[in-house]
Amino acid sequence: MPSAATRAALELFDHHRATLDRAVQAIAERGYWSPYSEQLKQYPEAAVQGAQAVFEALLNQHFKLHGPAPVGRAGAERSPYGFDLGVSYDQYDAEQLLARQQQALPAWRDAGPQARVGACLEILQRLNALSPTLAHAVMHTTGQAFMMAFQAGGAHAQDRGLEAVAYAWRAMAEVPQAARWVKPQGKGEPLQLDKRWHIVPRGLSLVVACSTFPTWNTYPGLFASLATGNPVLVKAHPGAILPVAMSVKVAQDVLAELGFDPALVSLVVDTPESPVAQQLALDPRVKLVDFTGSNAFGEWLEQHALQAQVFTEKAGINTVIIDSTADLKAVAKNLAFSLSLYSGQMCTTTQAIYVPRGGIRNGDEQLSFEQVAETLAGAVKGFLAENERACAVLGAIQSEATAARIDACRALGEVLLDSEVREHPQFPGARVRTPLLLKVDASERAAYAEERFGPIAFLIATDDSAHSLQVAREVIAAKGAMTLGVYSTDEAFLDQAEALAQDVAVALSVNLDGGVFVNQSAAFSDFHATGGNPAANASISDGAFVSRRFVTVQSRRHAAQ
Amino acid sequence: MPSAATRAALELFDHHRATLDRAVQAIAERGYWSPYSEQLKQYPEAAVQGAQAVFEALLNQHFKLHGPAPVGRAGAERSPYGFDLGVSYDQYDAEQLLARQQQALPAWRDAGPQARVGACLEILQRLNALSPTLAHAVMHTTGQAFMMAFQAGGAHAQDRGLEAVAYAWRAMAEVPQAARWVKPQGKGEPLQLDKRWHIVPRGLSLVVACSTFPTWNTYPGLFASLATGNPVLVKAHPGAILPVAMSVKVAQDVLAELGFDPALVSLVVDTPESPVAQQLALDPRVKLVDFTGSNAFGEWLEQHALQAQVFTEKAGINTVIIDSTADLKAVAKNLAFSLSLYSGQMCTTTQAIYVPRGGIRNGDEQLSFEQVAETLAGAVKGFLAENERACAVLGAIQSEATAARIDACRALGEVLLDSEVREHPQFPGARVRTPLLLKVDASERAAYAEERFGPIAFLIATDDSAHSLQVAREVIAAKGAMTLGVYSTDEAFLDQAEALAQDVAVALSVNLDGGVFVNQSAAFSDFHATGGNPAANASISDGAFVSRRFVTVQSRRHAAQ
Repeated sequence: MPSAATRAALELFDHHRATLDRAVQAIAERGYWSPYSEQLKQYPEAAVQGAQAVFEALLNQHFKLHGPAPVGRAGAERSPYGFDLGVSYDQYDAEQLLARQQQALPAWRDAGPQARVGACLEILQRLNALSPTLAHAVMHTTGQAFMMAFQAGGAHAQDRGLEAVAYAWRAMAEVPQAARWVKPQGKGEPLQLDKRWHIVPRGLSLVVACSTFPTWNTYPGLFASLATGNPVLVKAHPGAILPVAMSVKVAQDVLAELGFDPALVSLVVDTPESPVAQQLALDPRVKLVDFTGSNAFGEWLEQHALQAQVFTEKAGINTVIIDSTADLKAVAKNLAFSLSLYSGQMCTTTQAIYVPRGGIRNGDEQLSFEQVAETLAGAVKGFLAENERACAVLGAIQSEATAARIDACRALGEVLLDSEVREHPQFPGARVRTPLLLKVDASERAAYAEERFGPIAFLIATDDSAHSLQVAREVIAAKGAMTLGVYSTDEAFLDQAEALAQDVAVALSVNLDGGVFVNQSAAFSDFHATGGNPAANASISDGAFVSRRFVTVQSRRHAAQ
Repeated sequence: MPSAATRAALELFDHHRATLDRAVQAIAERGYWSPYSEQLKQYPEAAVQGAQAVFEALLNQHFKLHGPAPVGRAGAERSPYGFDLGVSYDQYDAEQLLARQQQALPAWRDAGPQARVGACLEILQRLNALSPTLAHAVMHTTGQAFMMAFQAGGAHAQDRGLEAVAYAWRAMAEVPQAARWVKPQGKGEPLQLDKRWHIVPRGLSLVVACSTFPTWNTYPGLFASLATGNPVLVKAHPGAILPVAMSVKVAQDVLAELGFDPALVSLVVDTPESPVAQQLALDPRVKLVDFTGSNAFGEWLEQHALQAQVFTEKAGINTVIIDSTADLKAVAKNLAFSLSLYSGQMCTTTQAIYVPRGGIRNGDEQLSFEQVAETLAGAVKGFLAENERACAVLGAIQSEATAARIDACRALGEVLLDSEVREHPQFPGARVRTPLLLKVDASERAAYAEERFGPIAFLIATDDSAHSLQVAREVIAAKGAMTLGVYSTDEAFLDQAEALAQDVAVALSVNLDGGVFVNQSAAFSDFHATGGNPAANASISDGAFVSRRFVTVQSRRHAAQ
């Protein structure tokens, strides 16, 4: 007999069944699909109009969540647009928090896949309704411009969460719940067993969020773990707690209303001075770790959290190779947007652009390397000429460290386009910077083959396009990459690029010169990271992202005759 | 345009398609199914009659396989039935071997899932045809009795191999090959991309075989890796090389006939004095490691081969809990067979049997602990009374170390049934031992809560059945287990056992008292290990066993309008 909480969650499963079925279809087809609108006008007008006030009412307050008795408070977020959020959050004793989640695990496990998925789908729907408000929280922690914060922090993040739920559901549903095993015995009676299979979560799940995409990069691990039965600790980045806390609150509300322990999803906050992720990641009860962030900590997790399944998205040297173009101006416009969007603070933004030092073929003309450089720099400059429009794309620089990195990197090459400090039209205190574009030689690997997080890109002069492929191969094999863009009018060269992409396991975009950009990744269609090169050890989301989050436990007995 | 080798393999895919489809159905249903007969009489009479001669013709010869230029020879197998096999095998320079496999990888990758699965299915069918001969090779390396060697080393191993292929195929087939992505843009033209997805293998795959089940425990990793595009190095145990070499030869024959590099599946042999598995497991090109064997080496691999996905099956404390019975004699008969089969050298054989020291309820009567002990010891004694039949079940002890362990363990408790040395009717030199059954108190954990590989079991006196559950929970949580058998006439107690099984992630068998045994695991129905307790970090086979062996690489470009 299922518990009352399970029965209530099963009703949610039925309620959201059509969405789930469509999502499962989407992951099988991977064409375009999104259940959550990225158009502000599709949301209730009152919610949109009131969003800013709701956000502002959260400021300078304590943000209350479920958990054990608090032992302290933390929170010192400052908007990259120039003001303190003033929000504080409870801190818990780790031992008490983990013990509480351990205690909550069996009821959540025993609820079964349908009930858990039903609860997850309800959480996602409520997150979607909260999108207009979430946008402000994402904007004023990450520095994303409002529209990007609304889309990437809202609908697109929810898409990724639902995608993870769909993969989790499919993987769990592929394990039969029961079967009768009937083995013939020649002329004798067959052997008969009744068998049952239980989906059993691995244990506690730690999701370590990042400061630039606190929802988009967090929801996949959170929902994949929760759907498969694992209680989730979401450790927010000290610089971007609020959107995570708001998301955790939605999850806790749904869990509590159903009658499960809301602490099944718990927020963990820490400070740069007293970080807690390392200690939590090594706790023997923590069996899953999802991490987005620096290579240093990602690699530390991979090498030390050996009691856990560790999923990391780190950084790499995202690459564009320009061999030849039909319309360099269109290409440059496309790349200018990529380099400018969120000031290059996406894990998918191009850093290394390889161009033969002898120049390239563009349509019927031959262009020198310098002409290519000028065209690209000019396109960025032109795109960002109008300040209000520029700020609506650039957003603000999330951290002071990234702003400082721009200055530090100037000396790494010849400046093709300098980074400018801009004044934001609405927020005079905003930390706004335009992209820095440097020219270096392919031999200067120390400059361009280290990740330079932020609006910093290199135009790299190579011997020829074969050399571009070779250097890109070596750099990506060694340092990883999330994205590879290749421009060529030669199908044979594109075949080589396709082989390179497979050899170093990087997602390839070919000849993007319109309204799609190399740094964009659409849920239900694009896999985000492959998990096959040093930039990430897992993809968001695919079968491998979910199947390691549970095990199957069987029981069998003689069949009743 | 696919290569000639790929086209030939695609024909094999079509040829074996019905088997594959049925196997995919089987893993979805997990009822009884096996495509490979375990009945000797179902095999061609000539093959059965001639098998021994074929086996004997291999003895005292060099066993030739494809590979780089050999740099030495190894091989010093001795049959547990008392004679030297006298077979030698080539050893290769590791650098040359790995470089050759790396070179062979792209063609195998580019052949695609269908071609690779086609080749795997052909290899399996040829292995099946070789079963009568393989039986002799398995028998005279592992010590398994002939019929078990024929079944577990032949059809059942092939079943497990096919099961892994079916999982691999399903996982790969779930990734679409291509899609058109069409994103509406309000009243404007939609954005349109054509996308392709490639299944990309992780790299080289090292499968470390064991001495007791050199085919059954090796085929899952071998076929899961090969089907997903990874070249496979099979490192045989020095004590059981021949069945592995014969299997590799079949794979190489098929690959060579198709026109692929036969070294895509290569044999690695070493000696106890100069083991090579550690070095290979740490090579940066090795991205997958499958291991069956000792906890020490399995844990070393988990902690050190961090560049690879590591799948281990180690050892645990397999457990039976007797709470109450309807017919203790039937239970004892069932357990007597389990304890005797292959002299307890199965990774699933029970070691710890918990019985309340106040005795148990058996039908209408109350039996003392001593009566339970006598019944069990008596059942084993009776079952093994007739020596020829006993030897046909016991087989021989694979290694001298296991035989020595029996003697060393005698002092760990009160001897309820002593292990006897038996003379094998056909092989006077065979190392045959009957089970040792000891009585200990639940407090003596140092005795029973360490794995004692071989025919060594403990009857453990507990305070009561609740205590049995509690001790079993603690021991399995700490040391792991592959199997848990529970006997009770009380459904409430069985519910507790079902919860325990989930809490410590162990496969549960309830009240087995007929022709099914706790240590038996049937492909396509029983999952072997859960991967959720210290006895194994992966299950053979499930979705997680295959999904981590490949990544998906996408490419996208503007759709041709």
